[in-house]
Amino acid sequence: MASLPEPLQALILAFERLPGIGPKTASRLAFYMLRQPEEISKTLAEALLAVKTATAMCPICFNYTVVGQAMCEVCADSRRDDSLLCVVEEPLDVLVLERTGGYQGRYHVLHGVLSPIEGVGPDQLKIRPLLERVKAKPPREIILATNPSMEGDATALYLRQQMAPLGLRITRLARGLPVGSDLEYADQNTLLRALAGRQEL
Amino acid sequence: MASLPEPLQALILAFERLPGIGPKTASRLAFYMLRQPEEISKTLAEALLAVKTATAMCPICFNYTVVGQAMCEVCADSRRDDSLLCVVEEPLDVLVLERTGGYQGRYHVLHGVLSPIEGVGPDQLKIRPLLERVKAKPPREIILATNPSMEGDATALYLRQQMAPLGLRITRLARGLPVGSDLEYADQNTLLRALAGRQEL
Repeated sequence: MASLPEPLQALILAFERLPGIGPKTASRLAFYMLRQPEEISKTLAEALLAVKTATAMCPICFNYTVVGQAMCEVCADSRRDDSLLCVVEEPLDVLVLERTGGYQGRYHVLHGVLSPIEGVGPDQLKIRPLLERVKAKPPREIILATNPSMEGDATALYLRQQMAPLGLRITRLARGLPVGSDLEYADQNTLLRALAGRQEL
Repeated sequence: MASLPEPLQALILAFERLPGIGPKTASRLAFYMLRQPEEISKTLAEALLAVKTATAMCPICFNYTVVGQAMCEVCADSRRDDSLLCVVEEPLDVLVLERTGGYQGRYHVLHGVLSPIEGVGPDQLKIRPLLERVKAKPPREIILATNPSMEGDATALYLRQQMAPLGLRITRLARGLPVGSDLEYADQNTLLRALAGRQEL
């Protein structure tokens, strides 16, 4: 691109490496940065530089926490319900569930799903610490909240099998039509699940 | 968000300030940064910090250029066609036109459009330098390539009026159906323009 000064080109390329950001969006973002007061790009740059060094993993649930703290805020919160344990794939899933305000139990983050094709087995995930945690202090119920995808289902089945000897209640999030959606646009699998899981009105 | 460490929250907020990036995408990007090697966030941070100080405006066409250069690469390129001058709203428009590979003339960047509602008059844009430039060295044709929007059209009309005494050929980009599109999805205005501008096959 002959018409682009190098520093601008470098910024576009850096934006392009982010997930879901293509060349067009990357250019738009880079040119936006040039139009705005320096403070906006500086704030983002500083946050980017700080995030890795200031963030650690909670040794109990493996969610992200601030460096130097013994455990994350959810694990440290004595008002949370110890009898419920929700197992999720990624730290972002904790955020999403917290935003609903509808869950008051504890979490465990696997940091991925089983995927033989990509070489991800149980040892690449936080499965062993989960089993140890559950054995040491069994909750009343374990919610396997991995994604409703092929890998998420397989991971949930594997975990159920591993935890079967413990005799705990093991659940999975409900599947069906998204709230506010339209039957017409639902895919076949979702519709089949919604039918199978239909409930008394 | 009780479950989010502060540095991560700061990064999400910084991403949210970018155009077209809502809270969900901002969270996704911030968590992605944590999963990736530090080099990715560092590259982006450094590009963000460098871009403002290393980029200047070309004193001829007002496109972005590298600090310390007398003019931008397009203005400095003696192979470009001096008889064509394309007037655009933003530096990004130069990039978009350059990517087509179909234009070999010169550019002039207005840095905005006339918008009385937002208090943008001719003096807030690079209109005076454009008129001086055109008077000093009149091109054969001026392409007013502001956007096909209300403000873009008004700005083009204003410029035509200002340049009328110079007796130059003044053109505007064609309007019609986008290539590869479907009549069915075209809006009424575009369809009317496509009809009015129909051409002999």
